Amino acid sequence: MVAKSELKLIRSLQQKKYRNQHQLFFVEGKKTIQELLNSDFKPHSVFYSDQNILDFSAPFLHEISASELQQISMLKKPNGVLGVFHIPKPKEINNKDWIVVLDDVRDPGNLGTIIRLCDWFGIQNLVCSRNTVDCYNPKVLQATMGSISRVNITYLDLANFLKGANSIIYGAFMDGKSVYESELSDKGVIILGNEANGISAQIEALVSQKVSIPQYGNKTTESLNVATASAILLNEIRRR
Amino acid sequence: MVAKSELKLIRSLQQKKYRNQHQLFFVEGKKTIQELLNSDFKPHSVFYSDQNILDFSAPFLHEISASELQQISMLKKPNGVLGVFHIPKPKEINNKDWIVVLDDVRDPGNLGTIIRLCDWFGIQNLVCSRNTVDCYNPKVLQATMGSISRVNITYLDLANFLKGANSIIYGAFMDGKSVYESELSDKGVIILGNEANGISAQIEALVSQKVSIPQYGNKTTESLNVATASAILLNEIRRR
Repeated sequence: MVAKSELKLIRSLQQKKYRNQHQLFFVEGKKTIQELLNSDFKPHSVFYSDQNILDFSAPFLHEISASELQQISMLKKPNGVLGVFHIPKPKEINNKDWIVVLDDVRDPGNLGTIIRLCDWFGIQNLVCSRNTVDCYNPKVLQATMGSISRVNITYLDLANFLKGANSIIYGAFMDGKSVYESELSDKGVIILGNEANGISAQIEALVSQKVSIPQYGNKTTESLNVATASAILLNEIRRR
Repeated sequence: MVAKSELKLIRSLQQKKYRNQHQLFFVEGKKTIQELLNSDFKPHSVFYSDQNILDFSAPFLHEISASELQQISMLKKPNGVLGVFHIPKPKEINNKDWIVVLDDVRDPGNLGTIIRLCDWFGIQNLVCSRNTVDCYNPKVLQATMGSISRVNITYLDLANFLKGANSIIYGAFMDGKSVYESELSDKGVIILGNEANGISAQIEALVSQKVSIPQYGNKTTESLNVATASAILLNEIRRR
């Protein structure tokens, strides 16, 4: 059974305010929960309605009924298990490799896709402006497919961070130099901007090299989506 | 005013069955509608509630009230204009350039993103298996941002098409040769598969070169999303 207070706590974690207050977040689904349990993330409590879903026992595991799971789940059709985890303290950001920086990315699906891309391309550090959507937002977590356990995500004041970054700072711009013709260093910082407005003027002033993805079609075409642009730029970084 | 019969017709177009029956589809939003009006697409009727949204007059334009627009719109907050267009006959597929082929892509957002990518990279022909999500699905159209007017999309029997394609057939596979090391011809066919199952065995048998996107992170990482993989592969095709 889930105590009423517990139910209320878990539901409150849909909101960033309460995630910050309690330093907790929740995820759903066997695969993501198993990946988090196998990582440095510390479980607070894991609720399952399907006996066969987890093949071990632990003090933080609680069997509940399907209707109880329905009450705490964000999903129309809960998938058998929901885990509450402690928000980890970000690790130190090392600049031995590329660092991906997001300037106010707002869409949860975009951030989730970018986290998954960082994981795919082995980028360990993702740095987000304070107005970037929260990575513990349930919709972000759904889109990351467990990658959140392998990427160190830090929210901070971007301008301060970039001033002390001691790296070449690349930024994605519509009017940048073609990334095919740009020299990319072995490591550096690559900034991607907000969905509607791109990189802000304050941050643009700190960019040392503007890069763009060449366009081959009609010039009236919308710019590429930020997640799509990230895919192409991280691919370019790694293929060199 | 919208006649009741008209209202019923437009609402029915949310379903593929009725889109096929009437050979009509609808889109919302000024930008997409203007792009379609400037293209080969033939308008059936355009309804607007905001007088300032379109700066011309035409027999197919109908001013309606905001509450009438609310009744025909798919959106919680309609954005002032909704257009009904005739589904065009696909043009002949020419193989002078690359052709993108989708084998049962099911997610509307993924198809919309791939159409937008074809437009960005100047790929004129997109060929879809009959079980790929319908490109006139309202959610696909929302994700294409008008690119639908510039990409020739054809639904057909993939196996038949590929047998007569007279091109080198590339396919995206997890176990293919690294795309960085693959020789890519000046033109060809590139196939991307279903979100869960990839390229089907029947189609795999027709592939002449399997390509993959190298992975740099942890090996337990989920495969890349099909839209993300498309972005990277189309970029690779154009950068050569």
